[in-house]
Amino acid sequence: MKKFDIFTPIGIFIGLTMVLFAIFTNSERGMSDVVFFIQIASFLIVLGGLTAAILINFSLADLKLIPKVFAETFRSEPKDFPELINTFVNLSTKARREGLLALEASLEEVEDPFIQKGVLLAVDGIEPEIIKDIMMAEVVAMEERHRKGRAIIERAGEYAPAWGMIGTLIGLVLMLQNLTDPSTIGPNMALALLTTLYGSLLANLVFIPMSNKLATKTEEEVFEKQIIIEGVIGVQSGQNPKILEEKLSAFLPKTQQKIEEEEEGVTVDGA
Amino acid sequence: MKKFDIFTPIGIFIGLTMVLFAIFTNSERGMSDVVFFIQIASFLIVLGGLTAAILINFSLADLKLIPKVFAETFRSEPKDFPELINTFVNLSTKARREGLLALEASLEEVEDPFIQKGVLLAVDGIEPEIIKDIMMAEVVAMEERHRKGRAIIERAGEYAPAWGMIGTLIGLVLMLQNLTDPSTIGPNMALALLTTLYGSLLANLVFIPMSNKLATKTEEEVFEKQIIIEGVIGVQSGQNPKILEEKLSAFLPKTQQKIEEEEEGVTVDGA
Amino acid sequence: MKKFDIFTPIGIFIGLTMVLFAIFTNSERGMSDVVFFIQIASFLIVLGGLTAAILINFSLADLKLIPKVFAETFRSEPKDFPELINTFVNLSTKARREGLLALEASLEEVEDPFIQKGVLLAVDGIEPEIIKDIMMAEVVAMEERHRKGRAIIERAGEYAPAWGMIGTLIGLVLMLQNLTDPSTIGPNMALALLTTLYGSLLANLVFIPMSNKLATKTEEEVFEKQIIIEGVIGVQSGQNPKILEEKLSAFLPKTQQKIEEEEEGVTVDGA
Amino acid sequence: MKKFDIFTPIGIFIGLTMVLFAIFTNSERGMSDVVFFIQIASFLIVLGGLTAAILINFSLADLKLIPKVFAETFRSEPKDFPELINTFVNLSTKARREGLLALEASLEEVEDPFIQKGVLLAVDGIEPEIIKDIMMAEVVAMEERHRKGRAIIERAGEYAPAWGMIGTLIGLVLMLQNLTDPSTIGPNMALALLTTLYGSLLANLVFIPMSNKLATKTEEEVFEKQIIIEGVIGVQSGQNPKILEEKLSAFLPKTQQKIEEEEEGVTVDGA
Amino acid sequence: MKKFDIFTPIGIFIGLTMVLFAIFTNSERGMSDVVFFIQIASFLIVLGGLTAAILINFSLADLKLIPKVFAETFRSEPKDFPELINTFVNLSTKARREGLLALEASLEEVEDPFIQKGVLLAVDGIEPEIIKDIMMAEVVAMEERHRKGRAIIERAGEYAPAWGMIGTLIGLVLMLQNLTDPSTIGPNMALALLTTLYGSLLANLVFIPMSNKLATKTEEEVFEKQIIIEGVIGVQSGQNPKILEEKLSAFLPKTQQKIEEEEEGVTVDGA
Repeated sequence: MKKFDIFTPIGIFIGLTMVLFAIFTNSERGMSDVVFFIQIASFLIVLGGLTAAILINFSLADLKLIPKVFAETFRSEPKDFPELINTFVNLSTKARREGLLALEASLEEVEDPFIQKGVLLAVDGIEPEIIKDIMMAEVVAMEERHRKGRAIIERAGEYAPAWGMIGTLIGLVLMLQNLTDPSTIGPNMALALLTTLYGSLLANLVFIPMSNKLATKTEEEVFEKQIIIEGVIGVQSGQNPKILEEKLSAFLPKTQQKIEEEEEGVTVDGA
Repeated sequence: MKKFDIFTPIGIFIGLTMVLFAIFTNSERGMSDVVFFIQIASFLIVLGGLTAAILINFSLADLKLIPKVFAETFRSEPKDFPELINTFVNLSTKARREGLLALEASLEEVEDPFIQKGVLLAVDGIEPEIIKDIMMAEVVAMEERHRKGRAIIERAGEYAPAWGMIGTLIGLVLMLQNLTDPSTIGPNMALALLTTLYGSLLANLVFIPMSNKLATKTEEEVFEKQIIIEGVIGVQSGQNPKILEEKLSAFLPKTQQKIEEEEEGVTVDGA
Repeated sequence: MKKFDIFTPIGIFIGLTMVLFAIFTNSERGMSDVVFFIQIASFLIVLGGLTAAILINFSLADLKLIPKVFAETFRSEPKDFPELINTFVNLSTKARREGLLALEASLEEVEDPFIQKGVLLAVDGIEPEIIKDIMMAEVVAMEERHRKGRAIIERAGEYAPAWGMIGTLIGLVLMLQNLTDPSTIGPNMALALLTTLYGSLLANLVFIPMSNKLATKTEEEVFEKQIIIEGVIGVQSGQNPKILEEKLSAFLPKTQQKIEEEEEGVTVDGA
Repeated sequence: MKKFDIFTPIGIFIGLTMVLFAIFTNSERGMSDVVFFIQIASFLIVLGGLTAAILINFSLADLKLIPKVFAETFRSEPKDFPELINTFVNLSTKARREGLLALEASLEEVEDPFIQKGVLLAVDGIEPEIIKDIMMAEVVAMEERHRKGRAIIERAGEYAPAWGMIGTLIGLVLMLQNLTDPSTIGPNMALALLTTLYGSLLANLVFIPMSNKLATKTEEEVFEKQIIIEGVIGVQSGQNPKILEEKLSAFLPKTQQKIEEEEEGVTVDGA
Repeated sequence: MKKFDIFTPIGIFIGLTMVLFAIFTNSERGMSDVVFFIQIASFLIVLGGLTAAILINFSLADLKLIPKVFAETFRSEPKDFPELINTFVNLSTKARREGLLALEASLEEVEDPFIQKGVLLAVDGIEPEIIKDIMMAEVVAMEERHRKGRAIIERAGEYAPAWGMIGTLIGLVLMLQNLTDPSTIGPNMALALLTTLYGSLLANLVFIPMSNKLATKTEEEVFEKQIIIEGVIGVQSGQNPKILEEKLSAFLPKTQQKIEEEEEGVTVDGA
């Protein structure tokens, strides 16, 4: 169900284009100025420094999450909440007509393993409170796991500008010690400032936006799981499908509710 | 019920006037200096950079909210709380006299769909706890939806100064590399500083005040919905209209309560 | 009961004296330097800019609070908590001797409308839970109202330095464009820095201290109201006056409790 | 039971020594440079400015706490938790053998007035819930009172650097206006920077560490009082002394528990 | 069970390598420049200043934790959660077959003293609520103790840059006073900037990453203890081993659960 999230590479592309645009706009020497902005050594200092801090900051188990976490920022997974609610309305209708046990057969049509798990627990006659406990524990564990992965990106967004500044400080100290040749002052200081630029770009184009995106995605997933838990409990307790639908729909923004109240229109859905 | 909120454009106008005023006050060359401050390229760098960060930061579903969210900052919706309480006093009086079922007919006079929904649930004999659950879920969903929309503006207010600084850093690096012609140093540095100015203006005149305004509006709406929920529950439980009025009025600031206690005056309503 | 709070004007006076003192100490030209620091135009830029941001930031209803909020920072209202507790001990004694209904007559001696309201509710035989709900709703509403008023001052304290910096940036850009006449560089930059100074002074001498003072005052009022609520409930439930006094006194700092335990002395009352 | 806390003066002494050391290390003129760093006027500006802000920020009642609060940062009060638990084990044993009333006699051996108060309430046969309410109210009041005292120091730590910067801005503006004599530029700017240095030192050597120390002390006191409350309730309910000890000991770090589990050693007690 | 955590020294090594790399890249004089960056005096100023602040900030009891806390950042303790759950499945199976008392014998195979304590309490027939209270109190105490130790490192990470800036300010003031010999300006300013560099490095390579690592470790330990508490309660209440396993497993990330659902794969475990 996951798709490639085109917005992450587009955003990074636009950001780098803006940097190029800024260079060309202010530059008098064109391409040779652009080349000056690509200093592998300066970039390595910022990247190496923040990697060092990240290595100390996290445990091995956390560090192993990095590739997955980065991959995750390039994936989007649009949720079909009306469809989800529909699933529970169907399950609820069936359960009231043919009994809870009949649900076991319907599960083959359900793809989401979290719904399957919940319904199986319900069919097994486990008490609602315990079902809720087991399912919530899984949600909390997922949230916790995502939070850890996100923390790495978040910290990187804090260490990047700090190490950018450390690089600039080192460059400044070196430049100040060798003020004898005035012609080198400008270029040396320009070079020193590059690490600050890299640190700022890494933070404000890569790490901070990415970590925020991950936070948003986790929120959405937790939200989906909560609807599922409510749905499973509702199905088990034999709640009226109509009320169950009403109750689950209330979680959704107006625009995603089945019965749209067009009269309200813009006013309610805005900000 | 929404009106155009004249204060948003007035505020932006005053802010820009202050900028013009600051230029004219300090300037020695008048209009030609004002023109220098309008650098489309520099503005595009800041705007492009923060757009790039926003694109990565949010999901497609969130990004679609942007036009509505901006439109929302130009709308105001003054709440008539005494009128709202009056509605519930009337509903409560009627319910006690003619029974809950009689309320269905009165609903035509009520405009707010949230009140209608609540009263219909009450008339249907749904238990108070479930009514509260359903209605609160809708409030939480609205709050959540507004929070998301607001988050975009809020983030823009954080990325704007960051990208302003990135633009200035690029300009500084270019300037420092070309120190040979002293006459260009000043203008080049002036140009470099413009992106910082734009970033700061976007943050402190547009994004931060707007996102705060949205937060205030959401609070007010949640507040209104809570009074409605209390009202619906009160009506259903056949609470005495007098006590219901007392209870709902207590939510309001003194100045909006029907029976004003003039003796207290300034002392209680201040800060 | 409110008095003029002499400390607010004294503080502002001392702060401005320090600024004058700093100018005279560093200055070589005396009064003419002091005059330079009074630049109406620069001050208007900071004030106008923050006003613009405030206009966008808040709703009309909030903006109307500004005069009251400012007035409030010049008022102090010392609370006499032992006297307050005494009131409830008396009410409680009377209620136990002559019955709750007898309290209605005693209310004329009580000035505070919040106590009157509470006792009237108790005399009317409303259930304690509902009394608490009604009274707490009023406290929450007051807290909320105060929070809104304070928010305006608080935001002003955030916008002031930001607009000070915007003014300085504009001045710097203009100065850098006209580096041809070296003799104007210094004074122009001095002028540019003034807005930063004004912004910083407005924040650290006016807005931030004032908004903190308002927060402290709200806390004290909420605290007083909570004692009153506890007192009313205690009186209604016919609690022993001795225990009621003990219970209410426990809220107070040792120094304000009737029976001072001198042995403890400094050790307990210190920070 | 309070002792003089030698670490506060030692810390301030070390900090000032570091400042002297930094001056001597970088200085070429020795003592005359040290003298330059002692500018009474500059120091008065920072101190006066932050005093002004503090005067506006707090109420008279709060300001009166200042001497006590400062004195408190020079006092330490090591808690003997095992002894405290022992007290309750003894009281519990006695209560089970001779009845609750017998405790009144034992109270003379107990010094802490908070324990005395609790046990007296227990002996009086007040219900456990009410005892807990009364005692917790006192703890909350103490916490609140300490929080207020600490807030003054905390705010001072925020105003100090702000007023340091205000002093420097004033000095810079004056210097920039008089650039005609180049020989005065350096010393004037050096003088201007001193207020920033003073503000930073006051914050990072005095106010911030002190306010953090007060926070730590309050936490410890609250912690002690919570153990006492648990102990009093345990004694009153006739809990088995062995279980009471187990329960109260669980609050403590391993190293302070009576029965040390040496096997665990470092691994559990480390951060 | 604790191992040496190789990542802390590796991280610090990489960070210092980056600093060296930055020096060599920008330097024109090679090794002699590297030597300049090692200024014992400057380093002592930063270290001495932050030590002074730490001494004031904490109590003697807290300061004694420092060696252990530092040692802790060099240790890692990978948790084997599936094994832990297995332990409780076995205990639960045995308890249902042979009775709770039979568990006492099995405890010899269990290494963790926290599990032993819990099971002994269960065998003693203490009520589940009290067991939970006692064990949770120990967890809270551990958390609190770790929080204190971590706070020291955290504060050091805040004082380090502050004292770096204080050192630089002192150097700048001295330099500005002696502008007569232009050739010394550069080196003096270079020297002044070194304390800022040291402060920044101490914060961003040592204190901040270390304090975050300690936070992560505490979280993991609390998490482990919570599973143990759930396990003990489950065993005592004679819960079905299968359900107990399900319930405890739900806490874990998918990859650590015994029955891995490979189909889900990457999608669920990512950030």
